Amino acid sequence: MNRTSEVGTVFALGGVNEIGKNMYVLQYDGDIIVIDCGSKFPDESLLGIDLIVPDISYLLEHSSQVKALIVTHGHEDHIGGIPYFLKELNVPVYASALTIGLIETKLKEHGLLRNATLNVIHADSVVRFGDIRTSFFRTNHSIPDCLGIVFETPQGTVVHTGDFKFDLSPENRQYPDLHRMAAIGEKGVFLLLSESTNAERPGFTPSERLVGAHLEEAISHADGKVFVSTFASNVNRLQQVVRAAAVSGRKLVLLGRSMVNVVNVAQELNYLDIPEGMLIDAEAAAKLPSEQVAVLCTGSQGEAMAALARLANGNYRQMSVDPGDTVIIAAGAIPGNERNVSRIVDNLFQLGAKVIYGSGTSTGMHVSGHGSQEELKLMLSLMKPRYFVPIHGEYRMLYQHRLLAESVGVDPSHIFIVGNGDAVEFAGGKAVLGDRLPAGDAFVDGLGVGDIGTVVLRDRKQLSADGILIVVVTMSKRDGSILSGPDVISRGFVFVKDNEELIRSIQELALGTLADLKEAKVRQWSALKRALKDEIAKYLFAQLKKRPMILPILIDV
Amino acid sequence: MNRTSEVGTVFALGGVNEIGKNMYVLQYDGDIIVIDCGSKFPDESLLGIDLIVPDISYLLEHSSQVKALIVTHGHEDHIGGIPYFLKELNVPVYASALTIGLIETKLKEHGLLRNATLNVIHADSVVRFGDIRTSFFRTNHSIPDCLGIVFETPQGTVVHTGDFKFDLSPENRQYPDLHRMAAIGEKGVFLLLSESTNAERPGFTPSERLVGAHLEEAISHADGKVFVSTFASNVNRLQQVVRAAAVSGRKLVLLGRSMVNVVNVAQELNYLDIPEGMLIDAEAAAKLPSEQVAVLCTGSQGEAMAALARLANGNYRQMSVDPGDTVIIAAGAIPGNERNVSRIVDNLFQLGAKVIYGSGTSTGMHVSGHGSQEELKLMLSLMKPRYFVPIHGEYRMLYQHRLLAESVGVDPSHIFIVGNGDAVEFAGGKAVLGDRLPAGDAFVDGLGVGDIGTVVLRDRKQLSADGILIVVVTMSKRDGSILSGPDVISRGFVFVKDNEELIRSIQELALGTLADLKEAKVRQWSALKRALKDEIAKYLFAQLKKRPMILPILIDV
Repeated sequence: MNRTSEVGTVFALGGVNEIGKNMYVLQYDGDIIVIDCGSKFPDESLLGIDLIVPDISYLLEHSSQVKALIVTHGHEDHIGGIPYFLKELNVPVYASALTIGLIETKLKEHGLLRNATLNVIHADSVVRFGDIRTSFFRTNHSIPDCLGIVFETPQGTVVHTGDFKFDLSPENRQYPDLHRMAAIGEKGVFLLLSESTNAERPGFTPSERLVGAHLEEAISHADGKVFVSTFASNVNRLQQVVRAAAVSGRKLVLLGRSMVNVVNVAQELNYLDIPEGMLIDAEAAAKLPSEQVAVLCTGSQGEAMAALARLANGNYRQMSVDPGDTVIIAAGAIPGNERNVSRIVDNLFQLGAKVIYGSGTSTGMHVSGHGSQEELKLMLSLMKPRYFVPIHGEYRMLYQHRLLAESVGVDPSHIFIVGNGDAVEFAGGKAVLGDRLPAGDAFVDGLGVGDIGTVVLRDRKQLSADGILIVVVTMSKRDGSILSGPDVISRGFVFVKDNEELIRSIQELALGTLADLKEAKVRQWSALKRALKDEIAKYLFAQLKKRPMILPILIDV
Repeated sequence: MNRTSEVGTVFALGGVNEIGKNMYVLQYDGDIIVIDCGSKFPDESLLGIDLIVPDISYLLEHSSQVKALIVTHGHEDHIGGIPYFLKELNVPVYASALTIGLIETKLKEHGLLRNATLNVIHADSVVRFGDIRTSFFRTNHSIPDCLGIVFETPQGTVVHTGDFKFDLSPENRQYPDLHRMAAIGEKGVFLLLSESTNAERPGFTPSERLVGAHLEEAISHADGKVFVSTFASNVNRLQQVVRAAAVSGRKLVLLGRSMVNVVNVAQELNYLDIPEGMLIDAEAAAKLPSEQVAVLCTGSQGEAMAALARLANGNYRQMSVDPGDTVIIAAGAIPGNERNVSRIVDNLFQLGAKVIYGSGTSTGMHVSGHGSQEELKLMLSLMKPRYFVPIHGEYRMLYQHRLLAESVGVDPSHIFIVGNGDAVEFAGGKAVLGDRLPAGDAFVDGLGVGDIGTVVLRDRKQLSADGILIVVVTMSKRDGSILSGPDVISRGFVFVKDNEELIRSIQELALGTLADLKEAKVRQWSALKRALKDEIAKYLFAQLKKRPMILPILIDV
């Protein structure tokens, strides 16, 4: 599987045909550069799995060649896998200051900070890895300090956009560097990797400033306390909440661990400006008139253990939502989270709060951090790539992004929609689709990574639906006669005390089955167990239409 | 709990603070009328539960008083619980012809049709139950033949709207009967129960005809086969697909059991007009040029076993989606289903299909069946109720409906937002909030209803996350010495063969624990089991951060 030298290779180890766990790889002449190392949450079919990170077995096979991990920005789908990655492959990490700050917090929690090599770079940095000259350009997104990356190789320039929108009036004045992008395109881009999240959305994503104006209006007109729930990492939005709260003479309380973490990091690194004395804790807030209190809290996605859900349930010890208070959900629900968010809104209304909520951008309290179709076309137009690989999206988004690229003049035969692991090889001015390299999901389950097989997951699925029924029989080694049992134990199937008759008939069935087999002189335990399992399964399905896992335990003495 | 006579009582047994399992009850002077008997699907926390239906224990306690079940229309959230209901309480059912047709199909599947009493009524029917004169009025919705109900009692008139929109240009010319509604309002409505599904949506829901125009345009411009996936029960939309397909010279294939069932019932009862010879089966379609084939299929909500998902996976034996075919998803995704629908769209694009999809009404291929804010205000304005109870919605919808009622002049103190079971009592021109009657969810799990307790569900939750670890030890009755074991069995926890070291350390821990207890002269089995469970749990959490269910089985011989 060793890639030949002097051929460049680009592939994804995560992030295409999915949203989440982004990881892209550039390989050239014996050097491997990794871009991003994200995580994603499992869907409901992966029972008990805590987190999914990229399978990095290809990188481990070529560990001596891996020179660096470059991180485009500090979102979980770009940094969430880093602790698991560095445990296996402790290479230097390169990222901008805020991103490094957020990575540090994460590594500290995993006890890995001491051994990590973290390099702070910025838009004007240049780093050389062997023949690869690496530079950067500033973009913007729903977290500050995002970078696109330019890799100049002897076989051509590869550009990775990171996540971006074109917010031309950004709250923090980190303007997207249009002129540098134009210069990069002018110099010649061989292959562009560009993100596809909003490739289905027509138009141009509105500026984050729009949210600021709505926040200020809502907060200045509120009577009681004001709660704003948003993504902790959206530092520009936090800044706008701070400003709106300050204008209306309110102190600010932070609720939720990630909100406190991000605000600490962002304040320390001067990405967030909070007036002296404005931050107070919940106890201090309780002593103030309610119209002098604003609260910034986590939980805008309806997460059950986050601050907003606990406030809505009346379970937050230090703080309560009272009649007349205003709650602003300044976030869109990520698909799959709508029901949990709705439940929270219901609870907040029941507490008597005014709730500002609504799908997507309808309330003006949220804008996307990703560029819409016109912005994706703008990036393609600036970069004028010879080849194009849409990344960071589910298949339909990659597909729509392909159509956008065609519409701005990219040769359709120069566009590759790839899966994770599909290598795009380039040399001599041409790029082709090469081998499929090992790639996939690694599951984090407790402290282990990747040790959960399909058998275990299939068992969990059966157990979750109908539970388990254990039948224990003690038999004589000498003549196969039954010494005790069958004892029937149920967990997650039916409650034994309420179903004595059912349990009795299972016992009788087991006894009958064993007697039949004895008569037929069947002695092997595997056959006895199989027969017990089959007979009981058949009986329960016929009687109850249920399929619990059935586990016969035979003991000989 | 017997309600006194000459006081009217109205309450929900399902349908408020939720979407689904609608059931409302009117009780007057010893007579009980039940309105609707729906089901809903469990959320992800109710592992293994198939269906939720209303808990009808209150009705069973008063079974001799229950005179009738009146069904407003044929959607699952209004008829899905009927088989379970009639098994317990075999009262006469009243509904319009199409609704009865769909109920018959359902009862046939449950083998209950023979014993049921089904009465077909229509908008001009009048039925008298004791002192309650019951009449109806025509509304429209995303299924034909919907009725609102008027109960005239000596203490005042109670109106139940059923589900409705005001489609003033309905595809089937079943116009909403504005004049009768006006007359009912003019005569005087004491208490109105009106549905709240779209109480959060401003404006007026567009007519179903809008969809027809878009379908016709898309189908007439399509090159290959055309697949349209929609709700089977939306007979008017089916009619529009039939018309558009006929206009462009296509034959029609039906895929999916509920599609075939509904089309059969609707054709038989003359709700659906399909030209002679137009319906063909998949084999016949395979012999036609693709531009002469249209397909109507189930699965617009992304259901894994429905026709659309199987077509998208290439797993439908008799039919395939080929490059150049067009697939139209003519439905909005119900919250919670978005991800499954998106996965299907991804797969269809990968098959090379043109897919017309999109959230809500953005493609013109879907309109809601429920009235928006202006229509809810129109109903309130026509009925001019003295008291108002918003029904059929989650709390925030009921709350928004309350605000709408206030805006058209209903006295705020005459509006009750109730929970399931909250009785509204009325007499002498006044209504008050009374007792909370027994109400709740009954779970259908296999063939059983309501036999799943919280212990069983809690066990399933633990089993689903981390599986089960069983430790079997055979001990001597005489002296407590260990004769065999500990044997360790894992299901859904870890795969034993890959974790021999872990299993060995669990065995050693079990042996050590039992030895310590023997030394301390602890003999009770409950104590031995508790100690084994605690020690192993502690060990596994410390080592792996996992919490499997631990089940020690001790056998004495």
